[in-house]
Amino acid sequence: MIIVMKPRAKMESIERIKAIIEENGLDAHISAGKEVTIIGVVGDKSKLLEHNLEIFDDVDKIVAVTESYKLANKKFHPEPSVIRVGNVTIGGDSLVIMSGPCAVESKEQLLATAHAIKKAGAQILRGGAYKPRTSPYAFQGLEEEGLKYMKEAREETGLPVICEVTSLNAIEAAVKYVDMLQIGARNMQNFYLLKEAGKSGLPVLLKRGLSATIDEWLNASEYIIAEGNPNVVLCERGIRTFETATRNTLDISAVPVIKEKSHLPIIVDPSHATGVRAYVKPLSMGAVAVGADGLMIETHPNPSCALSDGPQSLTFEQFEDLTKDLKPLAAMMGKKL
Amino acid sequence: MIIVMKPRAKMESIERIKAIIEENGLDAHISAGKEVTIIGVVGDKSKLLEHNLEIFDDVDKIVAVTESYKLANKKFHPEPSVIRVGNVTIGGDSLVIMSGPCAVESKEQLLATAHAIKKAGAQILRGGAYKPRTSPYAFQGLEEEGLKYMKEAREETGLPVICEVTSLNAIEAAVKYVDMLQIGARNMQNFYLLKEAGKSGLPVLLKRGLSATIDEWLNASEYIIAEGNPNVVLCERGIRTFETATRNTLDISAVPVIKEKSHLPIIVDPSHATGVRAYVKPLSMGAVAVGADGLMIETHPNPSCALSDGPQSLTFEQFEDLTKDLKPLAAMMGKKL
Amino acid sequence: MIIVMKPRAKMESIERIKAIIEENGLDAHISAGKEVTIIGVVGDKSKLLEHNLEIFDDVDKIVAVTESYKLANKKFHPEPSVIRVGNVTIGGDSLVIMSGPCAVESKEQLLATAHAIKKAGAQILRGGAYKPRTSPYAFQGLEEEGLKYMKEAREETGLPVICEVTSLNAIEAAVKYVDMLQIGARNMQNFYLLKEAGKSGLPVLLKRGLSATIDEWLNASEYIIAEGNPNVVLCERGIRTFETATRNTLDISAVPVIKEKSHLPIIVDPSHATGVRAYVKPLSMGAVAVGADGLMIETHPNPSCALSDGPQSLTFEQFEDLTKDLKPLAAMMGKKL
Amino acid sequence: MIIVMKPRAKMESIERIKAIIEENGLDAHISAGKEVTIIGVVGDKSKLLEHNLEIFDDVDKIVAVTESYKLANKKFHPEPSVIRVGNVTIGGDSLVIMSGPCAVESKEQLLATAHAIKKAGAQILRGGAYKPRTSPYAFQGLEEEGLKYMKEAREETGLPVICEVTSLNAIEAAVKYVDMLQIGARNMQNFYLLKEAGKSGLPVLLKRGLSATIDEWLNASEYIIAEGNPNVVLCERGIRTFETATRNTLDISAVPVIKEKSHLPIIVDPSHATGVRAYVKPLSMGAVAVGADGLMIETHPNPSCALSDGPQSLTFEQFEDLTKDLKPLAAMMGKKL
Repeated sequence: MIIVMKPRAKMESIERIKAIIEENGLDAHISAGKEVTIIGVVGDKSKLLEHNLEIFDDVDKIVAVTESYKLANKKFHPEPSVIRVGNVTIGGDSLVIMSGPCAVESKEQLLATAHAIKKAGAQILRGGAYKPRTSPYAFQGLEEEGLKYMKEAREETGLPVICEVTSLNAIEAAVKYVDMLQIGARNMQNFYLLKEAGKSGLPVLLKRGLSATIDEWLNASEYIIAEGNPNVVLCERGIRTFETATRNTLDISAVPVIKEKSHLPIIVDPSHATGVRAYVKPLSMGAVAVGADGLMIETHPNPSCALSDGPQSLTFEQFEDLTKDLKPLAAMMGKKL
Repeated sequence: MIIVMKPRAKMESIERIKAIIEENGLDAHISAGKEVTIIGVVGDKSKLLEHNLEIFDDVDKIVAVTESYKLANKKFHPEPSVIRVGNVTIGGDSLVIMSGPCAVESKEQLLATAHAIKKAGAQILRGGAYKPRTSPYAFQGLEEEGLKYMKEAREETGLPVICEVTSLNAIEAAVKYVDMLQIGARNMQNFYLLKEAGKSGLPVLLKRGLSATIDEWLNASEYIIAEGNPNVVLCERGIRTFETATRNTLDISAVPVIKEKSHLPIIVDPSHATGVRAYVKPLSMGAVAVGADGLMIETHPNPSCALSDGPQSLTFEQFEDLTKDLKPLAAMMGKKL
Repeated sequence: MIIVMKPRAKMESIERIKAIIEENGLDAHISAGKEVTIIGVVGDKSKLLEHNLEIFDDVDKIVAVTESYKLANKKFHPEPSVIRVGNVTIGGDSLVIMSGPCAVESKEQLLATAHAIKKAGAQILRGGAYKPRTSPYAFQGLEEEGLKYMKEAREETGLPVICEVTSLNAIEAAVKYVDMLQIGARNMQNFYLLKEAGKSGLPVLLKRGLSATIDEWLNASEYIIAEGNPNVVLCERGIRTFETATRNTLDISAVPVIKEKSHLPIIVDPSHATGVRAYVKPLSMGAVAVGADGLMIETHPNPSCALSDGPQSLTFEQFEDLTKDLKPLAAMMGKKL
Repeated sequence: MIIVMKPRAKMESIERIKAIIEENGLDAHISAGKEVTIIGVVGDKSKLLEHNLEIFDDVDKIVAVTESYKLANKKFHPEPSVIRVGNVTIGGDSLVIMSGPCAVESKEQLLATAHAIKKAGAQILRGGAYKPRTSPYAFQGLEEEGLKYMKEAREETGLPVICEVTSLNAIEAAVKYVDMLQIGARNMQNFYLLKEAGKSGLPVLLKRGLSATIDEWLNASEYIIAEGNPNVVLCERGIRTFETATRNTLDISAVPVIKEKSHLPIIVDPSHATGVRAYVKPLSMGAVAVGADGLMIETHPNPSCALSDGPQSLTFEQFEDLTKDLKPLAAMMGKKL
C-alpha cells in the first residue's frame, strides 16, 4: 500500500500517518520528493482496515499494490486449475463446448437438443429453468420441472448438465438434478448467492457481470472459493458499452488477462455477447484462437419459436457447421475437442 | 410494434410475416417504400411472444413502440405517487433527507448519528446491516444485531428507519425492525429478491444498477409493484462509466427522465455516486435544483474510523452545514424540508 | 513516480531499475515489503522519459503521483481564473449565459435570436458557422458568411459572439469576426487545432470530448495555454455512456472535480448533453446549483425548422422562462446574472 | 422513416404531420393502434430535412430505417472491396500485416525495423511522424524528417509505407513520401481532415474513434469516399469502456459487424487496443480467426527505450514468433499471408 500525500503536506500530517502505521505494527517508508511525499506501507495491511487513511489531512490518495483476491490469484497458485464436471474436464488442454437452449421449454425440446449437440461434439448440456428476465411479463422458466428434464437428458445422453440458479431455493432444487451451477451476469455480485453456491459442493460457472471489472469478477469468484469450493469456471459473456450493433460488447481481451491473473479456466459465451446468430460462429472461432478453455453456445430446434433469446440461438445444422470448423482450430491451439 | 424488412425483401417473406400476425388476431399495416418495407403491428403484442419475428427471412429489425413496464408507467398513471414511510411522505411537495452510516457498527455509533441527523433536519435514518462488499474479506455487516439497533434508534428519535436487504433471510429479519427496505445497486436485477421485497408489504427504495438503463430500472420496479406493492421509491446513485475522478458518474438527467416516464418518486445518493466527501454538498444542491424528491447522504460520527465507505461520509458538522444551505433551495423549488 | 515490482522480483531487477534512476540524477527510495517491493522516484521525472521502466524485468506497474498538466493545475495556480470576452467576464462571481442557434442559418434568424436572448438576460451570443456533422449529407454550415452575420449581430446588440472552429482555415476566418473561439467535443484531442487556437490570441471555450477523462481534458487545455494563451474556459457537454434516454450523459460531477483540480472556469451545456428540450431547464438549474460558472443553451426562433439540433433548442419564450428562474438561484449561489 | 406518435395523440396532430409529409411529395402510411399510432414515411427523406418532426406536438420519436451512409454500405455495393497499396492488396483473400514503431525516432531505428518485419513476413511498414499525445510535453514526432526516413525505408526494402496525418500540413507533406495515410482514433470525426484525406488520392486507413459507434465510423468513411476516394480500410483499435486491465477494450465483434454492413476491408490493431505487449499475440490470433483482413502491430528494436508506447511494442523476436503462428491460422481461414 502506498500513501500519496498532497503537495505541500504539513510535516505533522505526515508524522501522524506514520505514527498510525507504526502503532499497528507496520513499517512506513517515507520518500520526500520535491513536490510530493509518498509513504510506502510494509506489513499486514488488514491491520489498517479500521483506519480510513485517505481522509486524513493532507492525504491525496491511496494506491493498492496487491490484489484483494488471494485464492483465485495466480501469484499464489501458479498452476492452471482443471475442473471436473461429471466425466468432463474444463481447463488444461481440453476445449469444452456447452450448448443447449436459453430456456428449457419442454421435455421434447430439451431431449432433441441434447442429442443434436452431442452428435455435433458438445460435451455439456446447458438449459435455463430459472430465467432472469428484464420484464416480469416475459417467460420466467419451468423451474423444478425444467430441472427434471435436464436430469432426464443427462440419463439419455450421458452429457453432464448445467443450469443457472437465481436463489437459495433454486440451488436447493438444482443440486438434486444437475452437475454444475451457473451464476448469471445479473447475480455476479449477489454475494449471498455466491456463498450458497460455494456451499453447494457443485462446480460453479460464474458469468461476468455486465459492468464488472475483471478485478471485481475475480473477487466474486473468491466468495465461492472461500466457502471451500475451488471448482469455479469463469465465463466472459460481453460487457455493457455504448455500442448498440451488438447486444453487449464481447471483451475478448478478458481471456489473456484472466490467464495472467488467475489459475481459473475461462470460457466465452458469444451468444449472449452479441445477441445475433450470424456473429456466433466468427466469435467462437476468435475465442478459441485467443486461448479460451471453452464455449457456451445457445442452440434450439426451432429458434423462431424459442421462448427466450431465439434471435441468438443456432439451429442444429448451424451448430454442426460450427463444431466442424472448430475442430481443426482446436487442434492447432493444442486443445482436445 | 414495427417490423422493418431488409432492402429487396422477397414478397413471400413479407406475406409470411403478415400471415403470422393475422393468424394471431392482430392487424398488419404494410408500408412499401422504395428501399424498404415496414409492417406496423396493431393489437395485443403478447400474442406474438412465441414468434421471434426478427429471425424470419428478410426481417431486418423489430422496433418496440410501447414500454414493457405498465404499473410504473406515467402514461397509465399520470399523477405523481406519494409514498408514506412511517410519518414521512416521499414525493409530491416534500423533500426528504435520509441519512446515517454506510454500515451500522455499534449501538453508540448509530444512536449518536440518529440524534445528530435529526437535529440537522433529516427525516429518515439509514444504516446498513447486510453489506454487499466487493471482497469477501471486508466487513460484512452486523446483520440482525444491526437491525435491532435500527429499531432502538427509531424508538429514541421517532425517525423511520431504512436498511438494505440482500436475501430472503434478510427480508424476513428486516420486516420485524425497519420501516422501509432498500434494494441495492448490485441486486437491482436480482428478480427473486425484488419479488420477495414486493411481498413484504414494506415500502421499497430501489437503487439503480451500476449499468442499468432507465428502462431496465423501471422494469425492475415493475417486479415489486406487480406483487401488489406500489410503494416504490427510486434512487439514482451513479452509473459506471470510463471516468475515474469519481467512483461512479452521477446521472443527474435521470431525475427529469424519470419524472417524464414514471409517477414514482426519485431521490439521489451523492455519497455513493462520487465516493468523495468534498463533492457531496455541491451534488446535493444540484440534485435538489434538478427536481429530485430527496437525498440519501452518508454520515458518521468519525469518518476516519468508519468500517465502510468512510471517505464519502460527512461528519455531523458537515451534514448540518449542508442542510442549512438546502433549506432555502428547497423553498425556492417549492418543496418542504 | 512510484515503481511497483512484481512479487518475488529478483534483487538484480530491482538494482537495475535503481541504477537507471540514479544515473539520470534522481533518487530511488526502496520499500521492500513481504510480498512486493516498491521504488519511490524523487526528482525531475522528465529525465526518465526515454526509459520505459514498465517493461523492464519484474516491474509490475508504474503509478504517477503528479499530474502531467501544470499550467491548468490549481496546485500551481490556486486563484480561480477570470476570463474576459469583450465586456463580459467568465469565472469569479459572475454567471454567464451563452445562447443562440446550433447553426447560423440566415441573417434574420441570427439577429432575431440575438435580440431575444439579450432581452432575456444572456450575455454572449453563440452560433455555428462550421458544423461537424456525423453524416456528410447533413447541413455543414454557412462558413465565412455565417461569421459575418455573427459580427453584425454583435454590432446590433453589443453581445460578444462565439463560434466553433474546426480547422486552421476556420480559425483564420473567425479571428476577423468573433470574440471567442469554440473547440468542439469531436476536436478536443485535435492537438494541431488546439495549438492554432492557442496562437490565435482569442479566448477559447474547450468542450469536453465524448469519451475524454477529466485528466485528458485538462491536458488538452494545457496545449492551448502552453501557446501563451491562458484564456481557456471549459465546457461540460455530456459524455458517452450506455444510457440512451438522453443523447449523452451530463457528467455534472465534473463541475466540482474541475473546481478542485484547476483554476479554469467551467460552464455546462445541457442542450447537447441531453438532446431533449424538456430536460434543458431542470439541468440548467442543477448546473448552477452545483457551482458552474455559466451555461450554454441553444435557442431558435422556430425549432421545428432548425437545420441542426432543433429537438434540443428552446423557443424564445422557453428561454425567457428559464432565465427568469435562474436569476434567484444565481443570487442564492452568490453569482451575478 | 417511421414516426411514432404519443399515446392519445390528437387527430389534428396526426393530420398535421401527414400534411407536411405529403406537401413534400412523400407518402404517409398511418397505422392506428389501440395505444399508439405510427406513421410510415415512404419516399425521399432528404426532402424532410428542414422539418424537425420529432418536436411537433404529440410526436414521441422518429425511427430511422435506412442508414445515412450509402457509399460505404454493403446494401448498395455487395462485393467486398480490395484496396491496393503499392504492390500489396488489402481485402479479399489476403491477410496483410502492417508493422513498425509507434513513432519514427531515427533513420537507424526505422531501417532496422523495416528489415526485421519484412523478414518476418509483414507487407507494410508503419511509423508515426506526427504523434497525437495526451500531454503537450510528450514527444510529438519528427514530422517531415520522419517521413523522409519512411521513404528511404521503402526504397531499401520495397515495403509500402503508411503514416498518420493530423492536419492539412501533414497531408501535404505525406503525399510526397508515403503510400497510405492513416487517420487516427482521435481524429475520426475531424471531418475537415477526412475530406482532405479524401482529396489526397492516397488510400486511407481510418481508425475507429475511442467512443465511436460502428454507424458513426462508417459515416466517417463516407466523408472520405464522397471526395471521390473509395480506397478506405477500417481499423478497429479498441474502444473506451470502464475496464482498466487493458488500455482500451478491443471490440472484436466489430469485424463481423462491419463485414455485414460494409464492403470495406477491416484490420485490427491489438497493440493500441490493449497497451500490453503480452496480450498482442493472443489477440492477433483471435482477430485473424474472427475474419479480419489484417493486423497492425507495433514493433521496436528496443521497446524499453521507445519514445512512445514502448510497453505495447514487440521485439523483433516476439514479432517473428507471432507471424510464425499466424501463417497456419491464415491458411486455415483461407487467407494468403
